Amino acid sequence: MSPTALRRATSAPTSATPPTATGAVASAGTATPAVPASPLTSAGDVLRRCRELTAPALVEAIEGLHPWVAEMAGYALGLREADGTRVEHASGKGVRQALAVLGAEVVRGPARAGVPAAVAVELVHTFSLLHDDIMDGDALRRGRPSLWKAYGTGPAVLAGDALFALGVETIAVTPHAGSAIRQLTTAFGDLVSGQADDLLFAERPWTGPRAVGVGEYVTMAERKTGALLGCALALGARLAGAPDRTVARLDRAGRHLGVAFQIADDVLGIWGDPNITGKPVHGDLRQGKKTLPILAALDAAPGGGELAELLAGAGALDAAGVRRAVALVEATGARTRAEHAAHHHLTEARTLLTSPHLAPGPAAELNTLLGALSERTV
Amino acid sequence: MSPTALRRATSAPTSATPPTATGAVASAGTATPAVPASPLTSAGDVLRRCRELTAPALVEAIEGLHPWVAEMAGYALGLREADGTRVEHASGKGVRQALAVLGAEVVRGPARAGVPAAVAVELVHTFSLLHDDIMDGDALRRGRPSLWKAYGTGPAVLAGDALFALGVETIAVTPHAGSAIRQLTTAFGDLVSGQADDLLFAERPWTGPRAVGVGEYVTMAERKTGALLGCALALGARLAGAPDRTVARLDRAGRHLGVAFQIADDVLGIWGDPNITGKPVHGDLRQGKKTLPILAALDAAPGGGELAELLAGAGALDAAGVRRAVALVEATGARTRAEHAAHHHLTEARTLLTSPHLAPGPAAELNTLLGALSERTV
Repeated sequence: MSPTALRRATSAPTSATPPTATGAVASAGTATPAVPASPLTSAGDVLRRCRELTAPALVEAIEGLHPWVAEMAGYALGLREADGTRVEHASGKGVRQALAVLGAEVVRGPARAGVPAAVAVELVHTFSLLHDDIMDGDALRRGRPSLWKAYGTGPAVLAGDALFALGVETIAVTPHAGSAIRQLTTAFGDLVSGQADDLLFAERPWTGPRAVGVGEYVTMAERKTGALLGCALALGARLAGAPDRTVARLDRAGRHLGVAFQIADDVLGIWGDPNITGKPVHGDLRQGKKTLPILAALDAAPGGGELAELLAGAGALDAAGVRRAVALVEATGARTRAEHAAHHHLTEARTLLTSPHLAPGPAAELNTLLGALSERTV
Repeated sequence: MSPTALRRATSAPTSATPPTATGAVASAGTATPAVPASPLTSAGDVLRRCRELTAPALVEAIEGLHPWVAEMAGYALGLREADGTRVEHASGKGVRQALAVLGAEVVRGPARAGVPAAVAVELVHTFSLLHDDIMDGDALRRGRPSLWKAYGTGPAVLAGDALFALGVETIAVTPHAGSAIRQLTTAFGDLVSGQADDLLFAERPWTGPRAVGVGEYVTMAERKTGALLGCALALGARLAGAPDRTVARLDRAGRHLGVAFQIADDVLGIWGDPNITGKPVHGDLRQGKKTLPILAALDAAPGGGELAELLAGAGALDAAGVRRAVALVEATGARTRAEHAAHHHLTEARTLLTSPHLAPGPAAELNTLLGALSERTV
């Protein structure tokens, strides 16, 4: 996104999901899209097309699980309610499955070649959300009780484990299983490292030699958020037979997208409209979370000054403290610096996706999706 | 084991670990045994040889993890204390890693061919113990605080996830990675199903149409305990280049061993010497756990009679209740039936390992190990 676009998203709310379906969307239940993808397709349409392409394989994979575990998996994936009834419209956007399908298409492979990658990354992503909710004690996920709240911690741990194994298994039956699985486990290893760093950041001071640097933050975000986005694109391309160089290029693009997305999330967490973000205003600040705008502000003020004192104070900030902290962050220019950083990483991703070797239609769709993701309009 | 042998283990305590090392044991730090394995080797020696063969690869694999996650992994594997200091003698027996190494050797492959399988199954086993301890709320593991007690639930979930991914990755770099990984994920899927059934058994009644049958119990034990033992043998053989038929045969042998081991564990849980088992006397009975001797006793008495009434009573059994329950179980002949069932599954495992295609030396070592495992003398 451009800094202006991100600024727009933080001030002028737009409709969260385009409600109209177009002719480019396959009808439910068919395995291939009825009409070839068009560069004019909206991000919402791209996501819907890829979800519909992936859904049958995803449902089939889950049905092979132990019935109770399958019920939990269906709930976690937004396909079923806790009482087992089917959900008409799955609640997840399915960003990772879309990247996997587009990863196959952008290297001129058939969309179906990317489907096992789409299933695998969606399962691994859902698994990581399940375990994240347990780690963070989050009781809500997409407006419903999180799985551990609905079924208990033990069963939720078990269901997560099963989803991860199923994701790996989905890839193990594809050609070149070895390299494809290494792609997935490497990404997952990075995700674990990013998650571990994020947990450790919480224990570290705001200032001094042990303070978290902006560079460390970017590395954490690349691992925690970018690794699986990169893996989705790369794995789709790999299963479609792309050469290693192209696979690596797409992986890097997805990682940059992850950093852009994470920083945009941090900016919206402070200046965003809660009607768009769905999060409480200033929740991150109140919880003392080490987000990029804050780290950049502390970086700009030697010793951290008043902001550092405010943050290091005992307990959570009150409303006046939060207002003062936001004013101090803005005064250092850290908001602009964060917006520029997000823009930089999005541009890097777009540059990597600009290549005469890539199919122009899917590349255009990827660009649309990247913009919408960073602006949080899908 | 023979029913007599199991009866011996439950009445006449023997030394838990043979204290003498023999010439067949490699000196610490060398990657290959100094002397070829001999059929006269004790089970303790077999385990030690395989541990020493596997340890360098296991340590190397863990060192590639995020430092904090590696520290937790080292603690969980019994290689390090919570303060990071190295443990001289790892506390785990390493049964699964031994089965993997012997699986390679018994199909006439080099021991080193089985090492990636040994590392993978040990990592996956440790991961499942980590998550089991969280699910069951167990605060102790091998006489030390369990990982979630030492590091917190969130970090323990994360460390478990990392170990699983590392196990998969270890296999992904071997030849025939696809089929090897399917072997591992299939076993893990069974392990999850067995664990899920075990969790669900706890909620079911002792009698009536929803009661847990003896057959269901055996299926649960095969999945929960047998699947990974079978996978260890099978994966070692597969990486040594064994044909599918042999791999499947070894898998079945390991699954039977798992059932025998689980039933022996149940018998020892009621009639075993706590000095050998390391568990509180009658702990399973007091907690109302659905173990085979109890299920067999209820199966033998139509309607369950007095035993069913005792078990279905409110709260945990007191000492007199436990004594009465044990007497009732014995009166139905369920102890003998359980011992015979364990013997049957051990014999099945041994029969599957009796084949002119298998190398006699490693096959003899496997037999020694199987006996010792079932009698709990290692």
